[in-house]
Amino acid sequence: MNSTNHYQKVASYEARPEEVLKCVLLYSGGLDTSVMLKWIQDEYQCDVIALTIDIGQQADDLDAVKEKALKLGATEAIVLDCKEEFANHYLAKGIKANSSYQGDYHLSTPIGRPLLAQKAVKIAKEYGANAIAHGCTGKGNDQVRLEATALCLDPTIKIIAPVREWSMGRKEEIEYAKKHNIPITHTIEKPYSYDDNMWGISAEGGVIEDPEKIIPLAEVLQVCNTPENAPDQKELITIAFKEGIPVALNGAEKPLIDIVTELNQIGAKHAIGVVVHIEDRLVGLKIRDVYEHPGAHIIIKAHKNLEKIVCTQEENKFKTVIDQEWAHLCYNAQWLAPQMDHLNAYIDSVNKKVSGTVTVSLYKGSVQVEAIKAPRSLFNHAYATFEKNLSFNQNASPGFIEIHSLAMKTAYQMNNHH
Amino acid sequence: MNSTNHYQKVASYEARPEEVLKCVLLYSGGLDTSVMLKWIQDEYQCDVIALTIDIGQQADDLDAVKEKALKLGATEAIVLDCKEEFANHYLAKGIKANSSYQGDYHLSTPIGRPLLAQKAVKIAKEYGANAIAHGCTGKGNDQVRLEATALCLDPTIKIIAPVREWSMGRKEEIEYAKKHNIPITHTIEKPYSYDDNMWGISAEGGVIEDPEKIIPLAEVLQVCNTPENAPDQKELITIAFKEGIPVALNGAEKPLIDIVTELNQIGAKHAIGVVVHIEDRLVGLKIRDVYEHPGAHIIIKAHKNLEKIVCTQEENKFKTVIDQEWAHLCYNAQWLAPQMDHLNAYIDSVNKKVSGTVTVSLYKGSVQVEAIKAPRSLFNHAYATFEKNLSFNQNASPGFIEIHSLAMKTAYQMNNHH
Amino acid sequence: MNSTNHYQKVASYEARPEEVLKCVLLYSGGLDTSVMLKWIQDEYQCDVIALTIDIGQQADDLDAVKEKALKLGATEAIVLDCKEEFANHYLAKGIKANSSYQGDYHLSTPIGRPLLAQKAVKIAKEYGANAIAHGCTGKGNDQVRLEATALCLDPTIKIIAPVREWSMGRKEEIEYAKKHNIPITHTIEKPYSYDDNMWGISAEGGVIEDPEKIIPLAEVLQVCNTPENAPDQKELITIAFKEGIPVALNGAEKPLIDIVTELNQIGAKHAIGVVVHIEDRLVGLKIRDVYEHPGAHIIIKAHKNLEKIVCTQEENKFKTVIDQEWAHLCYNAQWLAPQMDHLNAYIDSVNKKVSGTVTVSLYKGSVQVEAIKAPRSLFNHAYATFEKNLSFNQNASPGFIEIHSLAMKTAYQMNNHH
Amino acid sequence: MNSTNHYQKVASYEARPEEVLKCVLLYSGGLDTSVMLKWIQDEYQCDVIALTIDIGQQADDLDAVKEKALKLGATEAIVLDCKEEFANHYLAKGIKANSSYQGDYHLSTPIGRPLLAQKAVKIAKEYGANAIAHGCTGKGNDQVRLEATALCLDPTIKIIAPVREWSMGRKEEIEYAKKHNIPITHTIEKPYSYDDNMWGISAEGGVIEDPEKIIPLAEVLQVCNTPENAPDQKELITIAFKEGIPVALNGAEKPLIDIVTELNQIGAKHAIGVVVHIEDRLVGLKIRDVYEHPGAHIIIKAHKNLEKIVCTQEENKFKTVIDQEWAHLCYNAQWLAPQMDHLNAYIDSVNKKVSGTVTVSLYKGSVQVEAIKAPRSLFNHAYATFEKNLSFNQNASPGFIEIHSLAMKTAYQMNNHH
Repeated sequence: MNSTNHYQKVASYEARPEEVLKCVLLYSGGLDTSVMLKWIQDEYQCDVIALTIDIGQQADDLDAVKEKALKLGATEAIVLDCKEEFANHYLAKGIKANSSYQGDYHLSTPIGRPLLAQKAVKIAKEYGANAIAHGCTGKGNDQVRLEATALCLDPTIKIIAPVREWSMGRKEEIEYAKKHNIPITHTIEKPYSYDDNMWGISAEGGVIEDPEKIIPLAEVLQVCNTPENAPDQKELITIAFKEGIPVALNGAEKPLIDIVTELNQIGAKHAIGVVVHIEDRLVGLKIRDVYEHPGAHIIIKAHKNLEKIVCTQEENKFKTVIDQEWAHLCYNAQWLAPQMDHLNAYIDSVNKKVSGTVTVSLYKGSVQVEAIKAPRSLFNHAYATFEKNLSFNQNASPGFIEIHSLAMKTAYQMNNHH
Repeated sequence: MNSTNHYQKVASYEARPEEVLKCVLLYSGGLDTSVMLKWIQDEYQCDVIALTIDIGQQADDLDAVKEKALKLGATEAIVLDCKEEFANHYLAKGIKANSSYQGDYHLSTPIGRPLLAQKAVKIAKEYGANAIAHGCTGKGNDQVRLEATALCLDPTIKIIAPVREWSMGRKEEIEYAKKHNIPITHTIEKPYSYDDNMWGISAEGGVIEDPEKIIPLAEVLQVCNTPENAPDQKELITIAFKEGIPVALNGAEKPLIDIVTELNQIGAKHAIGVVVHIEDRLVGLKIRDVYEHPGAHIIIKAHKNLEKIVCTQEENKFKTVIDQEWAHLCYNAQWLAPQMDHLNAYIDSVNKKVSGTVTVSLYKGSVQVEAIKAPRSLFNHAYATFEKNLSFNQNASPGFIEIHSLAMKTAYQMNNHH
Repeated sequence: MNSTNHYQKVASYEARPEEVLKCVLLYSGGLDTSVMLKWIQDEYQCDVIALTIDIGQQADDLDAVKEKALKLGATEAIVLDCKEEFANHYLAKGIKANSSYQGDYHLSTPIGRPLLAQKAVKIAKEYGANAIAHGCTGKGNDQVRLEATALCLDPTIKIIAPVREWSMGRKEEIEYAKKHNIPITHTIEKPYSYDDNMWGISAEGGVIEDPEKIIPLAEVLQVCNTPENAPDQKELITIAFKEGIPVALNGAEKPLIDIVTELNQIGAKHAIGVVVHIEDRLVGLKIRDVYEHPGAHIIIKAHKNLEKIVCTQEENKFKTVIDQEWAHLCYNAQWLAPQMDHLNAYIDSVNKKVSGTVTVSLYKGSVQVEAIKAPRSLFNHAYATFEKNLSFNQNASPGFIEIHSLAMKTAYQMNNHH
Repeated sequence: MNSTNHYQKVASYEARPEEVLKCVLLYSGGLDTSVMLKWIQDEYQCDVIALTIDIGQQADDLDAVKEKALKLGATEAIVLDCKEEFANHYLAKGIKANSSYQGDYHLSTPIGRPLLAQKAVKIAKEYGANAIAHGCTGKGNDQVRLEATALCLDPTIKIIAPVREWSMGRKEEIEYAKKHNIPITHTIEKPYSYDDNMWGISAEGGVIEDPEKIIPLAEVLQVCNTPENAPDQKELITIAFKEGIPVALNGAEKPLIDIVTELNQIGAKHAIGVVVHIEDRLVGLKIRDVYEHPGAHIIIKAHKNLEKIVCTQEENKFKTVIDQEWAHLCYNAQWLAPQMDHLNAYIDSVNKKVSGTVTVSLYKGSVQVEAIKAPRSLFNHAYATFEKNLSFNQNASPGFIEIHSLAMKTAYQMNNHH
């Protein structure tokens, strides 16, 4: 079995130690990337620039992260505030596409990866680095997303993925950290690992990975209440959309980033958007995750219902197919594929009319759409006000039924005669 | 405008008074069909057989219905117990297809219509009737479903749809009833109208039809608690599936009909499956409905998640498309279309492996899948037990990534050079 | 049977004689619409404006048509040259969508109908007419296309469809014509009826309608040679496309309308685009047609191949689905449906890169793509010139294969163990 | 760049010399696999069993192939006649699926690969070999198809792919052959390489790979005439199908294998099924091929048209989607994926009624469907004979049109008011 062998680099883009001059490490401040920061300096004998992207993570102290990177020998420690870019150029697309993968996972992690890769390539260019390093494992989706996007943007860039390369487990990493004076914050062994941005938090590991077991949610959740701990009072909120994008919350206009952030807080209180999710990874494995994405869940549900009321049956049906394609491309590391542009063209065309106000209620883990006001609603009483000729003529129905059912009837009779 | 004209019969299958010898009326015992029972005798001068199908309605006293029909002059009053046929030949198909239309409407009414039409045709044949009468309006889906199915089964049958034909409103109907000594049970003017079978109850009318208004659910619901009135304790239940069909509840094997019925009771208590739903009717209008289908909602959610764990990403993606086609055919009155058979062939092929036990929790309107045990689960730890060679080789990932992203990279670079 | 009854008007938009002030008749100069011109004056007691649209019909003398209309009592006889509008706003969309319905029918008739309806509504408005009359039968697609489009554009317009309404057959029409001094040009009884524009000619009737019979093509064809009569020499031509639209023929730049027209002539000589086609009508019937569309066939084949070379596997696959949706909407009278706009948005996004030159050969009924030059071709030798890093790394293949086949292998093994 | 490095084995299934006891080589008798036969003995120091599968190749002398293998040191040289299995279990599925990839490539090579892999696994088991070797390159589809299928069937099998591993080009191979006394039959350097079975022949290499150049077909083709050299007389033939499968040719019943073989001969004479095809490989590259598959082309065209006449519009539309999925799975090495079973279930369900006789004409490269007789044809004159009530009622059309166009009209008017 080759698992007993050393790791061998065969991809043309994998960095070999002798060719790396300077490297941009996607740095989170956690154990993996901290150990990595040191390890790359040793193994690749190169300068390391630590790059941290702020896309709305809720837990991290980014000043501390920066300081830690410098302490561990980073030649530069860069923190970029990309929150607005993330909201306006990534989440906005996701909202219009009702971003959901295999049920109610709103793609919080995958939608953040292309931006991360793009910033890494940009910083590499600016600082004269020819390699990018990341902390992803070799059996997940994120390695694909980061590497594929980076290679699109710069086919000459080299990639270092230490977790694939080294043969350290958690224990060995901690030993390595101690030996190299890398501060370890988490002393207690908590088996969950998290990924976090303003669109959602994912948790993996431990019992989460065994689908036959019930997950102790109270122990896993980072920001959300459990439904049992949520308030006993239902809360009503209104979200106004303009051309598919949320523009106001409870009547107050504000930027998308603020709406998402506030909905995260309100929703977390009511235990909204907590999803235990079994999914198919791009690399052919199944995984179970716990997601917390209160804001995303509320927005997508409101958007989907608003869209439904301004679209015809045919549009609504096909949009579902388009959205699923979109979600699979996003999940499967194809953000920069040309197919994505075409899907977005379709999606934008639909969303031109997706304007209006949606009232939703939040209660103990459930979000319900209670009412919708939309200028272009196709509901009959809406158009009735300006167009009398559109009233329904019941006398037309039998003719419709006769012709609508003709092919079915013919085929059915034909089958019966054979 | 033709609405000022008399109704004119143009469809080839519409019954003319002079040609009807005997007619089978689909009789519910309510105001509409009771008035109709009398009206058809008068207008068509023919015998009327009242036919009532028991597919698990929860409200009705079918003995009383039968007696009432006879009192109103029906020459026969037939009550057929079709509950098992409904569960085993209709709901079973729906479950395997995750029956859901435009969100979470589980198609309770449309899935009952073909059976109703089939029984009407059968009874007509047995009793020598050449026409079928029903109580559907001329701007809904049900007229299409009943008439299209009946015409497939017997292209010579004639249809009487009095609501399209007469020009009575509710007030005129009540007057007519009084004049003809038809007992009226509902004295209070409640604006909601219901359709009911073991797969769900739908409510329409009044404020439900105005999507800008919030619906007073407590007033509308027939069997379900509101979330606020549901128990404060979460309840865990297990459902075992065999080849896609529920076969046991909380460890006790029982027929599908019993599982659905019990889940309706348990779910109703926890306010599960209450859905306020805006949808596109087949005839080009939008409508808002309130659905109560606790059993359906629990079963579909469990089934969908079990199916996901035994299927690959590709199967899961395409099954979504197939299920949507299925739902639209079912909704759009195409139950007997040959396309339905082919979709069912696909769906049955998938469901051969959909066996296992799903644990779900019910709490204040939400159903969550907590755990899944499935012999054919594709989860890695499951197959690892019998097949060592299937363990994941991280060294394969970079090669995968290089080739998986090649077309995207080529296309992206090509676009950038132009 | 209602066929023995008089025709009854039940649609809200059908004109009643008493309400028509002035009517626009879509006039071709043939027997049907000539009889109609007179018949409407008599039956509806209203002024008739004869409207004829030039969208590149090849047979008709439009001056004579105009004169004839005036002779038969039309108050106005209007001939509009819409050839450019047809080419640039309708055919251009069709080309980008590879317009093909159920095989190789390039939708010549349906793509002309929305323009016809639009002009009729426009002229009605200009001349104060409140009704539109057309010569379509009651069991075809064209009645739906014309009426549906007209009603979208003006929901108050009334429609007169004399062929549905009168009960004349061909014989009765000829008698009517003689009685009313309507000149009849065609004395010989030829059973075929044609529809004609620059995108193609369709023929129906006689033996064409019996799919068990072989059609005597030489007798049916209007402009095309049969393959046997086509030249013995293969002819090579080149078509240059820019963003999906043909812009040059054999190196000479010219407007789309000229390219289509010239390709019609060249292609007709070589018997290209003669298609015997069985298809499903929108109204639930099957029909067999003979189409002659040499220009359309050459352009679509060239376009499709050019598109394939600049798109990835994924784009090519999904574009096929999009194109099929487009074709069904076009065929099924949904040109103005919002779904059409969204599909066009997708299609335009793809076509931005569909530029290049295609060499095709024409020979005895066949068109073959011989060579393609495209600046954005994704063919490897093309990108190799500017991007060394895109060369193929065979060492990546086994890693790809291992992961690409992992889910299939897992599922296969799992099935084998059960 | 890693291309300067040695090839490194990273996939878990790649054979290492020390672990191979005995190996089954998929042997064609050509240069590549003959060199390989020797090379594996030297490099892997193991016994080699040469396995050759007869699936209807037209060129090869299989007795000579066997003798050559033994001469080169194979411990066994096995030739299996798999022609019937290929026709009845692979081509039959392909015919029902109208097997076509990205236009008119009927998947001749990919449909043969799973059978080849299956036999290799079977022989390996029988003879106690633990590895399979093949002659495919590292940048094509066939390596994926063979390896993926073999790994499904036996996850413990090891693969040797010498072309990926050695660094010999054509010149080095010839030198190696001379040095090791391997007889070389082809002295003239012809740049084309062929793959051949009864479903078609593919040619690659030389000018074929440059899509900007016109291919000298006369030089490339193995069995087909060019259209110019084909007979000047059109030939009519009839093919009878039963449940989707050809069962008779020109009235004579015969096994599928004979029908395919005879149609190959007749079609080749008329230059049918010669396709110059640009396609997307699974591994992200584009390639141009020349295919000769006269029999396949005739059968698929006949089948598709017969299917169309017995199916409704809806079935015909969705079958196109299903067939495309099928073709992509077949092409993309997913023959054993569970999704393939489900698609086949759908396809079989459709094909139950695909029976009848199709008359096609063959002339100078074109095949045309001239007439179709099908007991279950949905053509109206066919059902009219037994069912009067199915005649078309024109009076139903306006009602149909009013409701069919209602949503479009509403949406259009709504958009116009905004």
